[in-house]
Amino acid sequence: MKVDGIATRTIWPADDGKTVEIIDQTLLPHVFEVARLRTVEEAATAISTMQVRGAPLIGAAAAYGMALAMEDDSSDANVAAAHDLLLATRPTAVNLRWALAEMRAALLPVAPNRRALAAWMRANDIADEDVEINRAIGEHGFALFRDIFEKKGRPQRLNVLTHCNAGWLATVDWGTALAPIYRAFEEGLPIHVWVDETRPRNQGASLTAWELGQHGVPHTVIADNAGGHLMQHGLVDACIVGTDRTTATGDVCNKIGTYLKALAAFDNGVPFFVALPGPTVDWTLTDGVAQIPIEQRSAREQSHIAGLTGDGRVETVRLVPEGSACANYAFDVTPARLVTALVTERGVCPASREGLASLYPEHAQ
Amino acid sequence: MKVDGIATRTIWPADDGKTVEIIDQTLLPHVFEVARLRTVEEAATAISTMQVRGAPLIGAAAAYGMALAMEDDSSDANVAAAHDLLLATRPTAVNLRWALAEMRAALLPVAPNRRALAAWMRANDIADEDVEINRAIGEHGFALFRDIFEKKGRPQRLNVLTHCNAGWLATVDWGTALAPIYRAFEEGLPIHVWVDETRPRNQGASLTAWELGQHGVPHTVIADNAGGHLMQHGLVDACIVGTDRTTATGDVCNKIGTYLKALAAFDNGVPFFVALPGPTVDWTLTDGVAQIPIEQRSAREQSHIAGLTGDGRVETVRLVPEGSACANYAFDVTPARLVTALVTERGVCPASREGLASLYPEHAQ
Repeated sequence: MKVDGIATRTIWPADDGKTVEIIDQTLLPHVFEVARLRTVEEAATAISTMQVRGAPLIGAAAAYGMALAMEDDSSDANVAAAHDLLLATRPTAVNLRWALAEMRAALLPVAPNRRALAAWMRANDIADEDVEINRAIGEHGFALFRDIFEKKGRPQRLNVLTHCNAGWLATVDWGTALAPIYRAFEEGLPIHVWVDETRPRNQGASLTAWELGQHGVPHTVIADNAGGHLMQHGLVDACIVGTDRTTATGDVCNKIGTYLKALAAFDNGVPFFVALPGPTVDWTLTDGVAQIPIEQRSAREQSHIAGLTGDGRVETVRLVPEGSACANYAFDVTPARLVTALVTERGVCPASREGLASLYPEHAQ
Repeated sequence: MKVDGIATRTIWPADDGKTVEIIDQTLLPHVFEVARLRTVEEAATAISTMQVRGAPLIGAAAAYGMALAMEDDSSDANVAAAHDLLLATRPTAVNLRWALAEMRAALLPVAPNRRALAAWMRANDIADEDVEINRAIGEHGFALFRDIFEKKGRPQRLNVLTHCNAGWLATVDWGTALAPIYRAFEEGLPIHVWVDETRPRNQGASLTAWELGQHGVPHTVIADNAGGHLMQHGLVDACIVGTDRTTATGDVCNKIGTYLKALAAFDNGVPFFVALPGPTVDWTLTDGVAQIPIEQRSAREQSHIAGLTGDGRVETVRLVPEGSACANYAFDVTPARLVTALVTERGVCPASREGLASLYPEHAQ
């Protein structure tokens, strides 16, 4: 998608052929800066400090990190060392684990003096595969939006609400939940996005608003509290969100607060879509609320917030009185009964065991 | 309720018998400061700048403002002028209008040289009546909490979730939604409060957290997104909120986001209570979603936020990228079907026309 009018990915091999460039996402939305990764250590740091974030992008960054490692030392020992270093940055990230296993499998059979080249090629493939998956999600989701637009008699604008950031910044390009929005925008559909701020980390107000703004997609940032009211008054035509983990039965684990929006959508007859790459489905799970453990993050993310001062400095301020405890649950689970459809790279299906099995028969029991 | 261990109201006549003191709420939660109001103009400014806020407290402040005016000039002309000056500060506030009408009716029949005394007496009465209403709400709400506590087999803690600030800071003392919580705390019930941050103005994270903390009530501040997850996992035993306006049929208009919590409570079988003084009911309304217009406030309340810097300054920072629009809907309406019961100064009733009529037969048609 575009930044300052120029098509940009979140990660790419630099022109020198030996290093990698990324958007430093810790500085967004107030500063856009490209950072260069020269070593596997720098790649690991970029992941652990969240200069790159979002499951697909972390996977791609780890893959490129292996290429950086092979430029330096292409021994078997270093394949293992780089793999372990990168895996330790976010030990529970499924995409990271997968991408590193792919890289190791691509490298070990190759002679050490050809491993750097093989690593760059496989890392580029992993990045391109992510782009292709998201492009396909965008195509299938766009068809849903177009249908709603036509059924509503081509309204002046199609209002879509999203939560958190499942945009191109979380992937290599396009995004998951935002891919259908970008596609609709490109196709000339008069789309407008309600962007949930997404407390406490504010990924909506910062990342989603920034990327939609850069690409020119009309949008409005709202408090997480506002979506229900908007839906009661017919101001939301559809919701679409991403997911970190989906059960085989269609329960969706996503950023905290997703469940509340799904309840409001259900109560008001607004379609609630979840965009996901097939690999996000955990085929071993059948009950999301009961089986998916929810990470609790630092209370400081709730008690403090960073923003831009009037004179252009980024400053962190405390919001909560001294002595008040804070809790910070990172995700919640939206039961499948509240999800209108899942939008995958293979097409659209009901949020159910049967629905998922129809698209991914290789996983059906 | 207590501040630094000392029982305190939000407004009181000063020891000099001629001025009024208030807690300057614009400085909370980071600074506790008492401000003195010497003239009706200062009272008007205190209301319009939200040094005092919350419908009942605004009414009391206006009443005391009339007393300040009478100390200065007790003519008929000044009764009218002070009335109009104070009314103009928040022209849509129902309590303000009521309190000013009460004061005018109490003053005009009295000889000008006795009006100052009459004004102080009536203003004190208005403040005391508010305290008594809230104390009664606290008693009725406490009975509900005690029942839940007993039915659950006296759990280690009773978890109550609240949204926004319907605490003593919004009234003269006790609060509406928080009155039952304070009462339960005083009675030794092991109560713990989940405090919704309440974006965008953060009344929960700042005011509710501050007043609970000062009184010593255990509480935890959470993102507005978190309540649904907590309810799914049995971590909320009851919700209680205030209301700005309730229809004759029991629909509840309250701070934006209340509706989302009510949906989650309903979905998880958690009781959802609304605390209100009888005068908050608008007996002319029958459909809250359709009939209650929702105020839109400044977008800046969404795009910017104030907090305390590391070196102790209050600073305002921008959260949203330049160029992104923001919307700021202040309230939403929770349909009566999602409300377990209304808690009033006269007792507890179902959120329905019949329920309200049983407590307020003088308004029943």
